[in-house]
Parts: sequence; C-alpha cells; structure tokens
Amino acid sequence: MSDKKIYFACSIRGGRDDAETYGALVTHITTQAVVLSEIFADRKLTPSGSPGLSADIYAKDISWVQQADAIIAEVTNPSLGVGYEIAKAEEWDKPVLALFHETGERKLSAMIDGSPNLLVVRYMDIDEAKLAIDSFIRSLE
Amino acid sequence: MSDKKIYFACSIRGGRDDAETYGALVTHITTQAVVLSEIFADRKLTPSGSPGLSADIYAKDISWVQQADAIIAEVTNPSLGVGYEIAKAEEWDKPVLALFHETGERKLSAMIDGSPNLLVVRYMDIDEAKLAIDSFIRSLE
Repeated sequence: MSDKKIYFACSIRGGRDDAETYGALVTHITTQAVVLSEIFADRKLTPSGSPGLSADIYAKDISWVQQADAIIAEVTNPSLGVGYEIAKAEEWDKPVLALFHETGERKLSAMIDGSPNLLVVRYMDIDEAKLAIDSFIRSLE
Repeated sequence: MSDKKIYFACSIRGGRDDAETYGALVTHITTQAVVLSEIFADRKLTPSGSPGLSADIYAKDISWVQQADAIIAEVTNPSLGVGYEIAKAEEWDKPVLALFHETGERKLSAMIDGSPNLLVVRYMDIDEAKLAIDSFIRSLE
C-alpha cells in the first residue's frame, strides 16, 4: 500500500454510462493508494451531480487536484470537467494516466490522445486497465 | 471589424449533434473578428475528426490557443478537448466565454460553471448567444 494520493477523474454531468467501470477502477486503486475523489465512483451519483453550488464543487475538486500526487482519469465518456482537470494537472506537473475503453464506438479526443504530457492507455477489458494502474502507481514511488 | 483573433472551441470527437449551432456562431464571430479554428464549424466534420495523427492535431490546436486573443467555447455537448482548451486558456490568462444552450436536457460541468476565471452565458436561442458574443468581443478592445 502506497501513501500516494490519487485524484480519480471521470464523467459526472457528462453522463454516467460507465459508472460501473469507475466503481471497479476506484476499488482497485484504493488497494494501493488513497483516492481523494472516491465519491465520484458512487453508482448512486447521477448526471445531476453532487448537490451544491458549482462554485463550491469547483473549489473542492480543484483543491483535491492540487493535493494529489497524480491523476488517473477514465476518459471514455466525453467530459468537460475531466478535460479541464487533466490540463490543470499538467499545468501543476502532476503525472496523468488516461484510461480509454477501446470499444470502437468512440474516438478519444485529439487533445488528450495527442498530448505529450500524459500517458494514454487503451484497454479492452477491466483487467488491462488494472494492470496499467498498477504500473502507473509503481512509477510514482 | 476587430482585428482580434478568436479560438472557437467546440465538440468534435465528443459528438457533432450541435454542428449547425457551431456553424451559425462561427459565421457570426467572423463578422467581427478572425476565427483561427473556423474549420471546427464545418458541418462535414464528423466525430472521426480531422484526418491526421492526434499529436499533430494537438500541436496545431494548442498553437492556435496560444495565438488567440480570446476563446469562445460552445460547451453544451460534453467534450474532453474543449475542457482541456479552456483550462489552457485560463493558464495563459486569455479571456474565455463559455456558451451553454439551456434546453433542460443537460447540466453544465461544475468545473466550467464554477470556474472563477471565465464567463459562462446560458442561451435559450441563437440570438442570445450572438448578443453575448458581441458584448464579449467589445470587452476585448
């Protein structure tokens, strides 16, 4: 168990189609590190998002990104917030792992896929994503 | 006609449902300023995006954001790239106008809606969006 702090980024208001995957990934990450944004994987969270003012949510989430040692983002479902947070993490020189579920239905944004400042891993099944997470967290030590 | 350079950001690989709106907005902006990313509003552009490597697209688009005096983003359709570009524009102290079409179907990301560094305008019809653009471009002078 590492004492690293991970910010897990995923779509909330952009759509919760992949909520089950988010849950499985966060459960896996918590075996190895602290996940600041564990709440994002809650399957009860709908696209209405967390209650409260957007400005308060923004302040809390940005503070978590600042505190984090690294970011793991699930980027299959398009999301303005995830794109924004990835850019902030890059600005603050935090390592970013972007996990994209390759189903043939979607094409990953060129701004994520083409960024020289982050690691993109395409996975076909959840075990591949978990292996990428293990390797990424080891690289932070 | 201002000589200001505007980067227009909109969803491409995230989905092209709002392509007609993007076209109308870009046509309107070009009456007042130079739009570096005019191609993004092309109705022939599909979610497959522009041809070419993601790294090349990234380099070109980021260079346009750097050259721009300001960013106008249509943020109704969730998009990783648009979220990323908005954060880059904030990092580089460029004014950002984010236009959200209020239809009741979607809820704007808290990371955009709650950011203290940009101007969010919700519009019900395209004329409201055009008025917001006029006012924003005037504010750049």
